Amino acid sequence: MAEVYTDLNKTVLTLIAEKSFQHLRDILTTMQPADIAALFNELSEKNLPLVFRLLPKDLAAETFVEMDSDQQHLLIQGFTDAELQEVVNELYVDDVAALIEEMPANVVKRILRQADPETRRQINEILKYPEDSAGSIMTTEFVSLRAQMSVTDALKRIRQLGLNSETINVCYVTDDGRRLIGVVSIRTLILAGEHDRIEDIMNRYVVSVRTTEDQETVAKMFAKYDLTVLPVVDGENRLVGIVTVDDALDVLQEATTEDFEKMAAITPTDRPYLKKSVLEIWKSRIPWLLLLMISATFTGLIINHFENALKTYVLLTAYIPMLMDTGGNSGSQTSVTIIRGLSLHELEFRDLFRIVWKEIRVALLAGVTLAVFNFAKLMLFDQVGLMVAFVICLTLMSTVFVAKLTGCVLPMLAQRAGFDPVVMASPFITTIVDALSLLIYFRIATVILGI
Amino acid sequence: MAEVYTDLNKTVLTLIAEKSFQHLRDILTTMQPADIAALFNELSEKNLPLVFRLLPKDLAAETFVEMDSDQQHLLIQGFTDAELQEVVNELYVDDVAALIEEMPANVVKRILRQADPETRRQINEILKYPEDSAGSIMTTEFVSLRAQMSVTDALKRIRQLGLNSETINVCYVTDDGRRLIGVVSIRTLILAGEHDRIEDIMNRYVVSVRTTEDQETVAKMFAKYDLTVLPVVDGENRLVGIVTVDDALDVLQEATTEDFEKMAAITPTDRPYLKKSVLEIWKSRIPWLLLLMISATFTGLIINHFENALKTYVLLTAYIPMLMDTGGNSGSQTSVTIIRGLSLHELEFRDLFRIVWKEIRVALLAGVTLAVFNFAKLMLFDQVGLMVAFVICLTLMSTVFVAKLTGCVLPMLAQRAGFDPVVMASPFITTIVDALSLLIYFRIATVILGI
Repeated sequence: MAEVYTDLNKTVLTLIAEKSFQHLRDILTTMQPADIAALFNELSEKNLPLVFRLLPKDLAAETFVEMDSDQQHLLIQGFTDAELQEVVNELYVDDVAALIEEMPANVVKRILRQADPETRRQINEILKYPEDSAGSIMTTEFVSLRAQMSVTDALKRIRQLGLNSETINVCYVTDDGRRLIGVVSIRTLILAGEHDRIEDIMNRYVVSVRTTEDQETVAKMFAKYDLTVLPVVDGENRLVGIVTVDDALDVLQEATTEDFEKMAAITPTDRPYLKKSVLEIWKSRIPWLLLLMISATFTGLIINHFENALKTYVLLTAYIPMLMDTGGNSGSQTSVTIIRGLSLHELEFRDLFRIVWKEIRVALLAGVTLAVFNFAKLMLFDQVGLMVAFVICLTLMSTVFVAKLTGCVLPMLAQRAGFDPVVMASPFITTIVDALSLLIYFRIATVILGI
Repeated sequence: MAEVYTDLNKTVLTLIAEKSFQHLRDILTTMQPADIAALFNELSEKNLPLVFRLLPKDLAAETFVEMDSDQQHLLIQGFTDAELQEVVNELYVDDVAALIEEMPANVVKRILRQADPETRRQINEILKYPEDSAGSIMTTEFVSLRAQMSVTDALKRIRQLGLNSETINVCYVTDDGRRLIGVVSIRTLILAGEHDRIEDIMNRYVVSVRTTEDQETVAKMFAKYDLTVLPVVDGENRLVGIVTVDDALDVLQEATTEDFEKMAAITPTDRPYLKKSVLEIWKSRIPWLLLLMISATFTGLIINHFENALKTYVLLTAYIPMLMDTGGNSGSQTSVTIIRGLSLHELEFRDLFRIVWKEIRVALLAGVTLAVFNFAKLMLFDQVGLMVAFVICLTLMSTVFVAKLTGCVLPMLAQRAGFDPVVMASPFITTIVDALSLLIYFRIATVILGI
């Protein structure tokens, strides 16, 4: 893929240098908007508006939506008012709303000034909902039908309004009070008889969400209920917008990235890595590194406390990393499994005891396996004494046990307490398990070796 | 959510006990298939077929698809041949193909015997493609149009074939050799004039995939190109099937879970956690724990090697966990960021030097920040000597530097070498960085403290 883009990029740059704009236009019109946008994201401030103007109106709008916000900003700065107006009115209102959220205030003013009054009203409707809510990702451009309509009436209405609505694949049915009462797919309409009435062919059991619902929850409903569109209603069940599956996919992708980042102790940010400055990256990482570094102090205190034991048995120090790492890895395995299960609603708090019981048995099995291997290695290769080997293997088993237990209980408690369980991923589990494993180690060592 | 299900579950069980089947049926028909399936997944072997038979035919099929494979197996065992036939022929062929992949051989034979000949042919067509390929997740039930058709002809054909195709929202246009030459959405058809010809309104630039394409790549294309359907073609560009966005969403969700598991050193399996036996969980975790435990041996060897230094300065031992953890966390932050960027195609191998240069600067900034905090703590609270504090802080800075460099280079090299970069996540990076940080620690200590 990388090579293809690079080659295309070279071709485009050559064509620009040669001013072969007709040829360039011919190439661009055969491409997908997302691919053109990927190309445009690499173009310089000088070439970008030049090449953008080659695109036919609809392709231009579709490409614009797919571009990075920095490049969008550059383009808008180069646009005449007429050009801006053309792009803004060609876009779907949810895309304009998303664009506005990324742009600085002066650009926002220009955009709103160029939007026609109805578009502006709809944009403001979307912008009033909190970020990350269903309302903020919905579009207000949809076709609604009435229960009394015949199929012919409905198709006529769709033909009238369809051009300005983001999808007509699914149409919602509302009553006199704009309340959502049913859903009918275009497929049902096409396959129905001309004189059938909507109320007889619609499905009355509609999955819908409130405007205030969290966007990640909304996105997950698409997978759960196999949807391509989801209606958004207000507190009185009045239909105010729809969310389409392409936006849900973007939300899911973003949410997954955020989860990965949180699991690696990074504060999520939504700019792509290569666009982020060194300072931005540092800011998203340093608070957690500091916090975790300070937490590791406790582990150091434990070692200090058992300084005398270590002086007598310096050998014991050599196994600290192995014990800490194995504990950390065992705990992470469990915590990540639980966190993902909670996120997919495969696991619920009420499953706590089933999970704990399962993890206890897995921990015993894994602990014994690791201890047996380790015992063999300690006796055959390291040739430590029997008692030392015994101390290490007993610690190993106990550590795995404690780690797996911590790894399943902490994320569940975090969620129960209203936190994102993701914070209880590897870094924190590891820090906690480190301290616990050393406590266990020295406790067992002092008792068995009589230090 | 959990509470709602539990309440519903109780209601359902009560209604079964009271034999109020009519009432139960009334409740079930107002519910979404996915929600009914969630309920059914909790029912006993005895009650399941009883309640399943209450569902109307189409709802029954839609619910069946959403159920866990264990429960599907139970149900099929309880089905008469007639019942099985009804469900199988009501399902879309890709769903039957997916079902067959989960069932034991004798059940598969029964299913294929009950499918009508055309369905059986289509199922076998899908089953011949390798697991995880586009061919294995596509459906062969779609409507294809011809370029010479008028809109009226096209709609007539859609009405004839629409009932048996998984979607009619997007129709593909083929030539005499069944080769894919265009795409037209139902929206375009509805909004076009009756006499318009398909070739004049279709889009000739169609995104398509080969049958052999990896399913995860296929799923990601839905997000990239904002698709709800994607056509699948063979080596001669002949249209053989379509993939719908609901299946793409499932693939993405599964792929994300697998990535989380791999990052936590777990071998991915596709059964839900609560359905997995203790032995299965143990098997997916123990190889990595063992491998990582053995790798940690090197870290132990390094400590052994510097035993004398540690005997003189037992104090140094107390900072080993902090140094190891900070190194591991710094490395994980970078590796997870890079792995995710590679997965989303935001980063490519050709970006290696830009990334390394960025990480070098972040590492210096983060290393200095951590060292300054740590120096203050060492001098004020721990009151170690100036030279010891110096050794620890210098090690900290070097460790963060090495960790960030390892964290960005290893995943990229892994991908370049054809491996999944995900294996270079926290556990392996941590193990590598542990050893490196201790080497640095003791090297610096011996030089500065002159041990």
